[in-house]
Amino acid sequence: MSSTDHATDGTRPLGVAVIGYSFMGKAHSNAWRNVGAFYPDVPPVRQQVLVGRDPAAVKTAAERYGWAESATDWAEVIGRDDIDIVDICTPGHLHADIALAALAAGKHVLVEKPLANTVAESEAMVAAAASATGRSMIGFNYRRVPALALARQLIADGRIGQVRQVRAAYLQDWLSDETAPMTWRLRRDEAGSGALGDLGSHVIDQLHSLLGERVVTARGRLQTFVPERDGSEGREQVTVDDAAWATLETASGVVASVEVSRMATGRKNGLSLEVYGSEGALSFDLERLNELGVDDGTGMRRVLVTEESHPYLAAWWPPGHTLGWDHTFTSQAADLLTAIANDVAPAPSFEDGLAVQRVLSAIEASDARSGTCVDV
Amino acid sequence: MSSTDHATDGTRPLGVAVIGYSFMGKAHSNAWRNVGAFYPDVPPVRQQVLVGRDPAAVKTAAERYGWAESATDWAEVIGRDDIDIVDICTPGHLHADIALAALAAGKHVLVEKPLANTVAESEAMVAAAASATGRSMIGFNYRRVPALALARQLIADGRIGQVRQVRAAYLQDWLSDETAPMTWRLRRDEAGSGALGDLGSHVIDQLHSLLGERVVTARGRLQTFVPERDGSEGREQVTVDDAAWATLETASGVVASVEVSRMATGRKNGLSLEVYGSEGALSFDLERLNELGVDDGTGMRRVLVTEESHPYLAAWWPPGHTLGWDHTFTSQAADLLTAIANDVAPAPSFEDGLAVQRVLSAIEASDARSGTCVDV
Amino acid sequence: MSSTDHATDGTRPLGVAVIGYSFMGKAHSNAWRNVGAFYPDVPPVRQQVLVGRDPAAVKTAAERYGWAESATDWAEVIGRDDIDIVDICTPGHLHADIALAALAAGKHVLVEKPLANTVAESEAMVAAAASATGRSMIGFNYRRVPALALARQLIADGRIGQVRQVRAAYLQDWLSDETAPMTWRLRRDEAGSGALGDLGSHVIDQLHSLLGERVVTARGRLQTFVPERDGSEGREQVTVDDAAWATLETASGVVASVEVSRMATGRKNGLSLEVYGSEGALSFDLERLNELGVDDGTGMRRVLVTEESHPYLAAWWPPGHTLGWDHTFTSQAADLLTAIANDVAPAPSFEDGLAVQRVLSAIEASDARSGTCVDV
Amino acid sequence: MSSTDHATDGTRPLGVAVIGYSFMGKAHSNAWRNVGAFYPDVPPVRQQVLVGRDPAAVKTAAERYGWAESATDWAEVIGRDDIDIVDICTPGHLHADIALAALAAGKHVLVEKPLANTVAESEAMVAAAASATGRSMIGFNYRRVPALALARQLIADGRIGQVRQVRAAYLQDWLSDETAPMTWRLRRDEAGSGALGDLGSHVIDQLHSLLGERVVTARGRLQTFVPERDGSEGREQVTVDDAAWATLETASGVVASVEVSRMATGRKNGLSLEVYGSEGALSFDLERLNELGVDDGTGMRRVLVTEESHPYLAAWWPPGHTLGWDHTFTSQAADLLTAIANDVAPAPSFEDGLAVQRVLSAIEASDARSGTCVDV
Repeated sequence: MSSTDHATDGTRPLGVAVIGYSFMGKAHSNAWRNVGAFYPDVPPVRQQVLVGRDPAAVKTAAERYGWAESATDWAEVIGRDDIDIVDICTPGHLHADIALAALAAGKHVLVEKPLANTVAESEAMVAAAASATGRSMIGFNYRRVPALALARQLIADGRIGQVRQVRAAYLQDWLSDETAPMTWRLRRDEAGSGALGDLGSHVIDQLHSLLGERVVTARGRLQTFVPERDGSEGREQVTVDDAAWATLETASGVVASVEVSRMATGRKNGLSLEVYGSEGALSFDLERLNELGVDDGTGMRRVLVTEESHPYLAAWWPPGHTLGWDHTFTSQAADLLTAIANDVAPAPSFEDGLAVQRVLSAIEASDARSGTCVDV
Repeated sequence: MSSTDHATDGTRPLGVAVIGYSFMGKAHSNAWRNVGAFYPDVPPVRQQVLVGRDPAAVKTAAERYGWAESATDWAEVIGRDDIDIVDICTPGHLHADIALAALAAGKHVLVEKPLANTVAESEAMVAAAASATGRSMIGFNYRRVPALALARQLIADGRIGQVRQVRAAYLQDWLSDETAPMTWRLRRDEAGSGALGDLGSHVIDQLHSLLGERVVTARGRLQTFVPERDGSEGREQVTVDDAAWATLETASGVVASVEVSRMATGRKNGLSLEVYGSEGALSFDLERLNELGVDDGTGMRRVLVTEESHPYLAAWWPPGHTLGWDHTFTSQAADLLTAIANDVAPAPSFEDGLAVQRVLSAIEASDARSGTCVDV
Repeated sequence: MSSTDHATDGTRPLGVAVIGYSFMGKAHSNAWRNVGAFYPDVPPVRQQVLVGRDPAAVKTAAERYGWAESATDWAEVIGRDDIDIVDICTPGHLHADIALAALAAGKHVLVEKPLANTVAESEAMVAAAASATGRSMIGFNYRRVPALALARQLIADGRIGQVRQVRAAYLQDWLSDETAPMTWRLRRDEAGSGALGDLGSHVIDQLHSLLGERVVTARGRLQTFVPERDGSEGREQVTVDDAAWATLETASGVVASVEVSRMATGRKNGLSLEVYGSEGALSFDLERLNELGVDDGTGMRRVLVTEESHPYLAAWWPPGHTLGWDHTFTSQAADLLTAIANDVAPAPSFEDGLAVQRVLSAIEASDARSGTCVDV
Repeated sequence: MSSTDHATDGTRPLGVAVIGYSFMGKAHSNAWRNVGAFYPDVPPVRQQVLVGRDPAAVKTAAERYGWAESATDWAEVIGRDDIDIVDICTPGHLHADIALAALAAGKHVLVEKPLANTVAESEAMVAAAASATGRSMIGFNYRRVPALALARQLIADGRIGQVRQVRAAYLQDWLSDETAPMTWRLRRDEAGSGALGDLGSHVIDQLHSLLGERVVTARGRLQTFVPERDGSEGREQVTVDDAAWATLETASGVVASVEVSRMATGRKNGLSLEVYGSEGALSFDLERLNELGVDDGTGMRRVLVTEESHPYLAAWWPPGHTLGWDHTFTSQAADLLTAIANDVAPAPSFEDGLAVQRVLSAIEASDARSGTCVDV
């Protein structure tokens, strides 16, 4: 791709287009605006276009978030020569169309999780990525939480021995109030899934990332505690799960329990992980994302993951100065740019995204069979 | 029962015999030695006989723990007129025989958990208890942890609304080292069960106690991570589970996840409970047994459960003075004595013990059927 | 002393008399009732007499707490041949008289802290102890908290290098409510001191114990936040401190900050210690007395101090089974009995008690001089 | 000032110059680059010039951090019409000269803390600010930690009643290793002060901010634990404090204890605050900056300060998404811009900065007088 070649030749910055300008669009814009300030060695980027359907709103957002232009037609933007990276932050049902078009146009593609709403779309995206000239990546941003990246390193280095058990949960409470109104997120045809897809996907990707292997069997249960809610047109049925549970096994025999919920009163963003190995253990809670519990067999140590030697930290601030949730997107952008510069495949890949969805599907299939074990 | 009548008439203290003098025998002896000092309003007791098979060892233990006598023949002791309460601390396979004999002799019976090693034995004990003149109780001592008793009160009072989800675990690590040797606890024919029975029984009883209702369906998985260990005669197969997982549902639709393990490196006695209701939540960790987390919808409060108004605390020390694990047995003895004095059924009953075992059986049955849901 | 000789010859148990039967009398009674059950190798004791001024009340308490007799005249009891150990749990102003009489009678003496209400009385007690045939000990029970005993070991072993800084506090809240009524504890002539003496004494003794050296200079401030309270005869002036602060220096140059308060809303029994050394750190909170934070330079580890290898723990329960506040008194009794049996001086000694009071006096003297540094 | 008028008229963005490009320059650059994205209602700004002494280095930094230009002569930059805001991130001894020049030129001035290295310079700056047309502000960024801003609100609203006691510390460990080399920060003539000035200044400003009143008396102690360190030219004397302690009193009678240290092994950025009032308490630890402990009299609640209703949070992310240390600078810039737009004095003011330094001076004066109380 000539446009990309130019850019990686250093003759001009890589042009970025973000599709979508609400919550994720804001977070990704922040990443592109700041990546060069913290990661000076990655290829320079230019915040070229922010794309959205509402022309006035996307124009306002583009000005606010530092974009040179705004646009409403993603297909047109993908065709532009000055766009090298297409970053997809739309609702999930649009991911496949945009990603396939962008890959066909030779662009590098970053897709916010989930890869797509269906396994079929995801498979098509994986296939397209395999033959594309551009690089592709899925946005599981928690891989860039320094504490979780450190956990991955420690496990890979054998610091806790052979992992046997993982105890994982992702608990939120925004649906705990049964008078909370109906939203599109609670309709299966629009959202695809409930807590399982939204929260479980992060947990499953972390299992794959931390353990360096895949889940191969699943036993699952889904539950909708509040089956109807008030919508704009009266009572409406909730068609996704409020909470889900799974017992998973990996290729090497690790057993992981997973619990996800939007009904866990008091938990705001409670992604917690406990990893038990033959010689130690690790623990993590996203609500305290700068900390990792490390037990090397003598007791659980609280490690403040802000040292220069910790993953990603050299880019940021001196020891003891904590990061927030949004910094993970900046580091994600840096990782993508580094992969592009080094001409290697970024991680996590579309295939990693597909792998997560296959596990989620297996959990749903198990639930449909009264919890019987299902192969992924 | 004339002996009992005498005793509750106040004409003489209730005579107690404890059968078993190792770990649980020591803990129960401690309870009988101290109950009167802290609970002066219960009927007075006399530490009459400690019973064990080794005459010299049981004699030493009896002297040390404050017993008037020691004996080796439990059947003979049960027949004595000066024994009113038989407290069974033997291995589980002896529980039924001793309890049935004691009930037949008109004694009050306290059986350390589990009720018995089999459901059949447990059913026989429940039947015997139903027609006995003596009172019967099972020793789930954690019901007397003040924080857990407070949790039960708060739930019953509706302080966290309608309970929906319970996240429970009981994690230990004494088998984490794969060179830890074979013991009778790892043989199915002797121990009955592994982590599931030993640790899971406490968790299930807490679910029943906290929620005031029973588990009705179970999905389960058992795992033996280290299938062979070194025994006194070479390598030997481990025939019980090292860890187990279950997803349970109660009569009213609460879903509880349970994870138990003897392989959770770094966790010594990690019974943890999180209860999520429609208007609040509770959290507990046995390693911090004087604390209860109480969230009434505004954030998780750490309550130091040492106030005079808290369950059991008025008997002990001024506010701020913490209790330990063994105090639960003293309060358990007090509750039994109070029930005897008031001529009411103590709780938890043999039936409560049987209910726990039925859930454990259902989890095993589910595991045998690849995790498919099983009715309790 | 013939009586003592008899007893330590093993010809009969050591006879104990406790003087005082309220809070501390209950705690010490509990220790004497249980010490033999957990520490079988110490000389056997007999709970002979509980002494108090109200004949009916002390009789009731004696029966409840397991004493053979009750009595009202401490002087008479001290003179008895069957009493070997006199354990003084009265208000502080009586300590000196009773202790001097008991030592003169050749008894072993345990005095609950503080040693006495005045330095002069304390000095007389130290002098008497030095020439007595009986052993003497002061009851700083927190020295028997296993986590604090472990901390002392770790520091002595150099595990945190050279100690430089200690950050200590003892915070309670029972006077936080300004409508809490006047009590004798708030009158200087009866109580001697306020938060400083009551809470600060424990902190100072821990400094001496942990560091193995004495405080040599003090800067201090006392404060009475609520200068008047409602008494039985109207408003009355509070003549002791509600809170106090001190900056202390030890012989080797460690600087310790101390803050004590009865006005710290929400803190029930918050004795906290942080010890910073050149190669590590320790942290402790009495509200979690089974835990010690140990940082050997790689992060603060939470150690559950319940292993058989930890101080005092072999006497109690298997790993993971926590102790409470009252167990410290039982271990204290065992330590006294062991010292008697081994014919060595028990620790902490009367001199240790005097050392604490000299520091408290220096803090008060500094406060009187606007905070200027005062030698102890 | 015509330039300012233009800018606040909205005819062009406010032009910003930052003086200094190392740690603080990076943090402030980040704030100016991002303020408009999160606070769209503040006047727009333009990152015009980054100023430093080394032309090549400052040019590189300017490009990296998003500045239109770089420059080496701060006096020249201050004179430019297109500069409206001068943000001073130099070492402290340059603060006064630059701030006075900028105020004389009619610019708005933001000075990173401390206001200056001496009280005299600070007084001159306060006087200049009082008569200037531009606005002035000191950069105590922790006032923009949402949890601390919430704490301030809660106290002002009387939620914990009348504050009596504050327990504060700021503990770090970067000098704990006695082989850590000599730096300019340990020379009194360059750094002005050690831990006291560097860390204590933040603590004192928080006291003033949280309590809404000033410290009026101080008792203090300074300590240099490692009096010599290896410098580039051999052993050199350390002429500032490694640690300091103070007991302070405010106008209304609140007593605050303060401990600061660079020797507290294991503490990376441990600014901790406990505020005890007559009806509640608050607690905070900067290492967990998204959390505030709130005790309204029923136990300490952990509040995750990420709700839209919490201070500053509406600008950022949905509930449960945590912020980091650097976000405080962005919010600080927003507050300055809002004050400029509303034509009101920003807080904290130069006078607030001077007030902090007067307290620090009083602590030093007290230390020089053996701890005797000194009026601020």
